[in-house]
Amino acid sequence: MNGNLNQDTICALATANGIGALGIIRLSGNEAVEIAQKCFKGSDLRTAKSHSVHYGFVVEKDINDERLLINDNAKIDHQSSTINDELIDEVMVSVFLAPKTFTTEDVVEISFHGSPHIAKKILEVLVKNGARLAKAGEFTMRAFMNGRIDLAQAESIADLIASENEAARKVALNQLKGGISKEISLLRGELLNFTSFLELELDFGEEDVEFADRTALNNLLDKIERKLKSLIESFQYGNAVKNGVEVAIIGKPNAGKSTLLNALLKEERAIVSAIAGTTRDTIEEVLHIKGNAFRFIDTAGLRETTDEIEKIGVQKAKEKIASAKILLYLYDEFDSSAEEVISFIKEFQRKDLKIILLHNKIDLNGGYFENELDTKIKSELFPDITNTIIGISAKDVESVEVLKTELSLYIEDLKDTESNVIVSNQRHYEALKSSLLAVDAVKEAIKSKIPTELLAFELRNVLENLGEISGEFTNDEVLGNIFSKFCIGK
Amino acid sequence: MNGNLNQDTICALATANGIGALGIIRLSGNEAVEIAQKCFKGSDLRTAKSHSVHYGFVVEKDINDERLLINDNAKIDHQSSTINDELIDEVMVSVFLAPKTFTTEDVVEISFHGSPHIAKKILEVLVKNGARLAKAGEFTMRAFMNGRIDLAQAESIADLIASENEAARKVALNQLKGGISKEISLLRGELLNFTSFLELELDFGEEDVEFADRTALNNLLDKIERKLKSLIESFQYGNAVKNGVEVAIIGKPNAGKSTLLNALLKEERAIVSAIAGTTRDTIEEVLHIKGNAFRFIDTAGLRETTDEIEKIGVQKAKEKIASAKILLYLYDEFDSSAEEVISFIKEFQRKDLKIILLHNKIDLNGGYFENELDTKIKSELFPDITNTIIGISAKDVESVEVLKTELSLYIEDLKDTESNVIVSNQRHYEALKSSLLAVDAVKEAIKSKIPTELLAFELRNVLENLGEISGEFTNDEVLGNIFSKFCIGK
Repeated sequence: MNGNLNQDTICALATANGIGALGIIRLSGNEAVEIAQKCFKGSDLRTAKSHSVHYGFVVEKDINDERLLINDNAKIDHQSSTINDELIDEVMVSVFLAPKTFTTEDVVEISFHGSPHIAKKILEVLVKNGARLAKAGEFTMRAFMNGRIDLAQAESIADLIASENEAARKVALNQLKGGISKEISLLRGELLNFTSFLELELDFGEEDVEFADRTALNNLLDKIERKLKSLIESFQYGNAVKNGVEVAIIGKPNAGKSTLLNALLKEERAIVSAIAGTTRDTIEEVLHIKGNAFRFIDTAGLRETTDEIEKIGVQKAKEKIASAKILLYLYDEFDSSAEEVISFIKEFQRKDLKIILLHNKIDLNGGYFENELDTKIKSELFPDITNTIIGISAKDVESVEVLKTELSLYIEDLKDTESNVIVSNQRHYEALKSSLLAVDAVKEAIKSKIPTELLAFELRNVLENLGEISGEFTNDEVLGNIFSKFCIGK
Repeated sequence: MNGNLNQDTICALATANGIGALGIIRLSGNEAVEIAQKCFKGSDLRTAKSHSVHYGFVVEKDINDERLLINDNAKIDHQSSTINDELIDEVMVSVFLAPKTFTTEDVVEISFHGSPHIAKKILEVLVKNGARLAKAGEFTMRAFMNGRIDLAQAESIADLIASENEAARKVALNQLKGGISKEISLLRGELLNFTSFLELELDFGEEDVEFADRTALNNLLDKIERKLKSLIESFQYGNAVKNGVEVAIIGKPNAGKSTLLNALLKEERAIVSAIAGTTRDTIEEVLHIKGNAFRFIDTAGLRETTDEIEKIGVQKAKEKIASAKILLYLYDEFDSSAEEVISFIKEFQRKDLKIILLHNKIDLNGGYFENELDTKIKSELFPDITNTIIGISAKDVESVEVLKTELSLYIEDLKDTESNVIVSNQRHYEALKSSLLAVDAVKEAIKSKIPTELLAFELRNVLENLGEISGEFTNDEVLGNIFSKFCIGK
């Protein structure tokens, strides 16, 4: 795969853009150390050990000095000929030598005073000295192309960086450690063996031998099918973890939606502000409960005063409920009839929507007790759906906790999957579904006893689909496997 | 000064908050390495060499393991007892051992996948293991308190991080390298000697000796006065460099202000977008010309149609011109009379306001040539003020360049200061002004031949004011200087 990789030494700002005490600029490539040295006043980086850090200055060296340096590298003491050098910043430079680096190439990291202006200036100097600005994801791509990580691991790095809660972080870290790739590659390895045998059959085609045991193949396919199904099933949880669970809060204008949201958010805000440097711009609508993200969708406007506006409100609410996984319906006995609640819920209930009825303003009743209203709603709705009524008051911490537990239960139910590995990546999910279809096609092919050539083709299709996840190139590999194992000498 | 310093091991996010490939969390204090080790799965950081980098995982270790670790640190192989440990992130950990570190204490830097959520999680784990979240500036404060840098250098770090253009970066870097402190401490050292001699005179008070030569003292004070004046003068440039130069653009609604601003900004935007990761939110109003910032103040609303609005517009323009250093006045011969331009400028001109008249829409004239309008304006305005008229057209790159050169000239004129060191810090500026007053007071005191006690008091006042810049505590120092040099044995 190395053939596809360009050999430029690339550089980029690695830390978040903005003002901070420190910023890091990363260089990777054969000339990373040489280029860094050209822009550095301090110890000689070219003799530095791997994983060592060096104090000095980034400098824009005088062109004339530079020429001397290039013409007679060994003899010029370029540290002393720096009268015309322009100091850019006081820095710490870390040297990582191939192959034990992120990209497996030589890597240099420059830690500078975290001003975006200084970052720009240092990048300019590096580019003047032969580096190229990296494209998005190019460092990780090199780590993949150079074989240090597979495609799924490369993707998990992006997921880790984007992780906004505990569940997302754990799923991504597990994947970075090779979770899904391990699961798949075991099965894929077994299937690859079968395919190699089948290809052998093709080579010995006229002799009518059967190297690949069809029954064993069927068993293996069943095993793969089960595994694929459980991985595919895990995506419902993985997706919830990665993208959060959409929750629609519905209620009349005065039902207490914003009071409830504030009660939920208040606590979260306290947690966030206790740790410096973690302010969030979008907290107004995203709640993290027990490490999972819930995206609360504002449905303000439901059932306003005039008919026309009511229509629009209901229409908007309908759309929001359609995309939501959970519906919170706020009502109270002062403002709602059982019929009203029941007809609304009946209109919107569907199989994959968890509905939580919130009997609000229980503090005005002196606490929650099931009254006539709730009994009526329950008897009408609960034969059909296994949802729940929670008595709630924004002033009552306890009742807010009950709601949070109920929301968490939704995630816990999803989490209850056979698979140890959680699929959270849409591409993997698609590849797994394609793989499952391909497996079915192979099973069908075996049943209908189609010629070996066609069976081999179907199997290669499964391997390719499975291989898409880790980024392996299937066809080359099948050939490689045959030649290395059974080298017939043809 | 160490007595004032708390001994906690502190931790904080060092990089800008936000999503990036990497983020850095920094620890400083006696237990930095020990605490990092408690949260680390990888090689043993406690045996790591200074300035070395180590691959591993940040982990939240199981409490039971933790207890074992604390009870019998030497015997437990805590790397192997990690079954219940929660992995937080894959990281690189840099170890810097005292005293050659930023704070002079042991420092550990953890480089993690740059998600704010992961940052928060790692900080939580560090705090659980005995670190404390650092206060704003606490690392730099420790560097100062531990004597690695003086106060002016500490301040320059903040300036470097905030630097938004070349001039600001250079001034801050020069200061970090000790620029202003060196200038001051030389003079201060000489003055300190005199003060020590004066204090001696006090000790020998009854014997009527005069250790301190009053004429030499006067000469030294003259020297200090000149230096202070040139440093104070440099602040006009330093302040322009640090905070940018306010430029008011004035003109009738259709005079071409926004076209001109766009022409200026377009070029800047091209430069900025060529370097990845340097997008700026406030670029709409700040222009960097030849490495200096010009803050363009929008004066939309000048001379609208109705009288009432016109009044408000003129009032706003007046306020803006009052705080500006440069006034750009756009007019054209199709829409303005000489009288109108002259009366407006005459109203606003003042000594410290550079006025640039922009004869706009010259493309409609086929290029700039001085016509009757300009001649009239010139003869009326130029006997009084040395300003200029530039013929301009937003479509004409050349004419925009002439304007940029004219703006740069303003900075160049300020830059033309006697002082090698540029003062850009308001606190230093105030301290320098106080020092100058204190020097005058001493000179006055010598002239009026006041008693030695009072002269010594005035001199200590100068030393304290000068010492404020580098953060030295003057009185302790005067005493220290006497005892160390002349130890009389009293």
